[in-house]
Amino acid sequence: MDREQQKRYWHTSAHILAHAVKRQFPEVKLGTGPAIENGFYYDFYREEPFTPADIEKISKAMEEIIKQNLPVEKIFVSKEEAKELLKDEPFKLEILEGIKEDTVTFYRQGDFIDLCEGPHISSTGEVKHFKILSTAASYWRGDENRESMQRIYGISFPTREELDGYLKFLEEAKERDHRTLGPKLDLFSLHPEYGSGLIFWHPKGALIRKIIEDIWKDVHLKNGYEIVYTPHIADLSLWERSGHTGFYKENMFAPMEMDKKVFQLKPMNCPFHILIYNTKLRSYRDLPIRWAELGTVYRYEKQGVLHGLLRVRGFTQDDAHIFCTEEQIEEEVIKVLELVTFFLGKFGFYEYKIFLSTRPEKYVGNPDDWDKATIALGNALKKTGMTYEIDPGEGVFYGPKIDIKIKDCLNREWQCSTIQVDFNIPERFELKYTDKEGAYRTPILIHRAILGSIERFFGVLIEHYKGNFPFWLAPEQIRVLPISERHIPYAEKTSDVLKPHFRLQIDRRNEKINKKIRDAEEEKVPYMLIIGDKEEQSGTSALRKHKEGMIGTFTPDEIMRMLKE
Amino acid sequence: MDREQQKRYWHTSAHILAHAVKRQFPEVKLGTGPAIENGFYYDFYREEPFTPADIEKISKAMEEIIKQNLPVEKIFVSKEEAKELLKDEPFKLEILEGIKEDTVTFYRQGDFIDLCEGPHISSTGEVKHFKILSTAASYWRGDENRESMQRIYGISFPTREELDGYLKFLEEAKERDHRTLGPKLDLFSLHPEYGSGLIFWHPKGALIRKIIEDIWKDVHLKNGYEIVYTPHIADLSLWERSGHTGFYKENMFAPMEMDKKVFQLKPMNCPFHILIYNTKLRSYRDLPIRWAELGTVYRYEKQGVLHGLLRVRGFTQDDAHIFCTEEQIEEEVIKVLELVTFFLGKFGFYEYKIFLSTRPEKYVGNPDDWDKATIALGNALKKTGMTYEIDPGEGVFYGPKIDIKIKDCLNREWQCSTIQVDFNIPERFELKYTDKEGAYRTPILIHRAILGSIERFFGVLIEHYKGNFPFWLAPEQIRVLPISERHIPYAEKTSDVLKPHFRLQIDRRNEKINKKIRDAEEEKVPYMLIIGDKEEQSGTSALRKHKEGMIGTFTPDEIMRMLKE
Repeated sequence: MDREQQKRYWHTSAHILAHAVKRQFPEVKLGTGPAIENGFYYDFYREEPFTPADIEKISKAMEEIIKQNLPVEKIFVSKEEAKELLKDEPFKLEILEGIKEDTVTFYRQGDFIDLCEGPHISSTGEVKHFKILSTAASYWRGDENRESMQRIYGISFPTREELDGYLKFLEEAKERDHRTLGPKLDLFSLHPEYGSGLIFWHPKGALIRKIIEDIWKDVHLKNGYEIVYTPHIADLSLWERSGHTGFYKENMFAPMEMDKKVFQLKPMNCPFHILIYNTKLRSYRDLPIRWAELGTVYRYEKQGVLHGLLRVRGFTQDDAHIFCTEEQIEEEVIKVLELVTFFLGKFGFYEYKIFLSTRPEKYVGNPDDWDKATIALGNALKKTGMTYEIDPGEGVFYGPKIDIKIKDCLNREWQCSTIQVDFNIPERFELKYTDKEGAYRTPILIHRAILGSIERFFGVLIEHYKGNFPFWLAPEQIRVLPISERHIPYAEKTSDVLKPHFRLQIDRRNEKINKKIRDAEEEKVPYMLIIGDKEEQSGTSALRKHKEGMIGTFTPDEIMRMLKE
Repeated sequence: MDREQQKRYWHTSAHILAHAVKRQFPEVKLGTGPAIENGFYYDFYREEPFTPADIEKISKAMEEIIKQNLPVEKIFVSKEEAKELLKDEPFKLEILEGIKEDTVTFYRQGDFIDLCEGPHISSTGEVKHFKILSTAASYWRGDENRESMQRIYGISFPTREELDGYLKFLEEAKERDHRTLGPKLDLFSLHPEYGSGLIFWHPKGALIRKIIEDIWKDVHLKNGYEIVYTPHIADLSLWERSGHTGFYKENMFAPMEMDKKVFQLKPMNCPFHILIYNTKLRSYRDLPIRWAELGTVYRYEKQGVLHGLLRVRGFTQDDAHIFCTEEQIEEEVIKVLELVTFFLGKFGFYEYKIFLSTRPEKYVGNPDDWDKATIALGNALKKTGMTYEIDPGEGVFYGPKIDIKIKDCLNREWQCSTIQVDFNIPERFELKYTDKEGAYRTPILIHRAILGSIERFFGVLIEHYKGNFPFWLAPEQIRVLPISERHIPYAEKTSDVLKPHFRLQIDRRNEKINKKIRDAEEEKVPYMLIIGDKEEQSGTSALRKHKEGMIGTFTPDEIMRMLKE
């Protein structure tokens, strides 16, 4: 099935769900029920929550409706008729009021009829295998001040194999869920009671972040970038000048007024780098200028869309801005793509999907510049041998861009890297450089991020690795487990040899060795060193690998050599 | 002169200034004129600004008043009489209205009389040597909505030597002023048009910051600290719980309301670390827990007190919180003091002034705990051999503290490190740990910072070093200067050898070698390598040291060895 067919299939599945609910609970009022990225849902209004037994009944009724193989018909009715048909469905009536046309469409299957634009598949029998996945609370029209609805999620496929495969994928994804692994491995926490969508990095998660940031800074400095630091707030007028108060306002936090000045939490770093650029007159000799910042930005997202580390309100972009001439775009983009390949490869991502988005209908700048920049982006992709698709008209209004999605081990796609040419900001801030002849020219500005957001990237990493971070990234690389208290001094001696080279802890607790091993396994420490009488006497430790078990008995020096590789 | 005598001396000097102004410009209205830390000022209201010629006249008049050696008399008058005396001084009348007492005091010298509490020295002739230093605009009562005043600053001393010494100090301080050196060396900028008190770190300043932060993190990790990262905002309720909305409100930015939730920019990091602590039950075995964060906080300071990097609205604290038992306080504080000595010494600060502040009148917690903690702080200072003074009753309401002031090369004191015990927050957030018997106990919380604020510390460093950062901290350590364009390839070869070890740039400009040397000297690059025909033929470079000149001619390997030390 292609995406369009799948959408129809799941949309009809949603109607079957609503049909089944109405058969079992005729008093329930219908909300809406679309196909979504994976499956479908339907929102219902009912005083009492659906119990597992209710869901069982609904599921049975769905099976019947499928077995009946009811044809799905499209009906055109006048608005007057529609009002009559929906007289007991207040939510549907509300939707109806919003429709301007005189004739509306319904879809009917047996005794069930629903105000709906479609499209649908032709009969209920085509839906072969389905499963109700979960229920959740939602608000009518997403508005916290409106009625609370009950949303039922489901999935369906034409074959049993597809359904089983998907359910297995769900189970695997659940085991990898960073929202479960994060607290379990003591990596991070959220404290929604003191503000949703804000991440607190615990020592182990922070250590991973530090390792990532250190490499990031190091590699950038070696590749001709310079690092800058800028504030998290600025006068609102900066955002007026940059245009963000116009086209980005709904993502910005409320401004803070102090002594008649108005401060704004930053949703982006760019205007700050621009101000640094404008502190002196630059020459063509200075270009390209590449300024990188691990800049923490704050964007207001609605409560309902927040999701662990993946969708947050405060996050750190691995941001950079390149100021260059038109002729330098291609070479600069090639260099960025090489950095992308290096960094994503370092974290075990080798498969990407790349999109080059071109000029949309509404745009700023002149078409010639757009064309040249778009060609430069395309050439850069070709020269680095990267396969890409063109997303026609999907560029931002200020310039063409390259988006790179990575695939994780469950084949899920994550948008990370982005490279965007900007014709807007250089004009708005009157950026200039002097060319060879001493004339003033406007530089090209390229925004780029490789990991995207450190928070989001960390979420993807946790799920990709299932919390089993590779040795170089593990916050605790080795745990030394003395079998009893009398082995602690020798454990410390061993630790002294290894500590300068590895991140290591000693488990000094007064616990049985099996418990210590179990805990280290649970906490996904890559290597354990077990130390008892035998080891102490021979000056060795027993090396155990996470999930794989005993490797052998080695001296500290041998262990150092083995693990250094 | 002690501090009290000095204050009287300068206060009388301020009256002499006002007296002189009234003699020369009788229409001027008087504001106030106190002694300040260094000298004195007086605020005047006058339509036209004082010109340099006016200041000359005022200075002359001051000399006369001093020569006249007028006795300074204190007079007690009734409020009614005072009103009559001040009928032409609207600002003084305003002050008078605010005085509750029935009798007020004036000070009189010759024909000049001023509403004043004193104290003063006994005659104008005692002021021997003075100088008017500068003029500045100020607002009446510091209120932007009130009249704009002209403030005249001055200094005075009993001997010519003292005055000359002070003027020389001022000149030296001016040359070292980080607000001049910062932009000149391209280290940082401020953009008050887009928000005052916010620092933009340019690449060179940012590189220095990165070096400082890297060492800071590295040393902390090696010394048993763990690093955490926390958000810059939280729900206002967090600050209600911590108590900050009560005792710290005026330093906080305005809250941001979004969808009925209220977010607050953080003025401090502590409540965030507390929330991480409370994500699980801690045991006595886990203590001490030491969490460090380079946490950027935002505190609202009035426009008038902002000062370059030294007084800002956004700054990064090198913050840490230690959770420990009462018995661990002393040892923990000793360890912090060792870190303080290490870090401050690393930056060339060896002289400190240390204050131990004890229980104030208003405090939380019980006196026994205060006593024990205060003794522990004192013992730690004694055991590390640090001389300190006791500041009785100057502790914060929540606990005793140690403050450490460093002395820079001009003998100016800067408050940097602080170590504070907190009995308040652990109670407010119900922090707990289980002791050996399994009973719940409340841990001690120690707040500590070593550098204080990275921004402020950087400002002190710039002035301390006069921009001549030590080799290890210099953003550009070596500049390679090819004499002409044909020497560039060899310059690049030399650079390739040294680049992996040093921060190095090649000056490729088409400029005369003298100009290149002058620029490198101006930009305070510690070492230059000059490369011409002779050097190229012998495979060497001529090594030149900043401010000292030529050292000799060496091969790249020799240079590497020499500079590595």
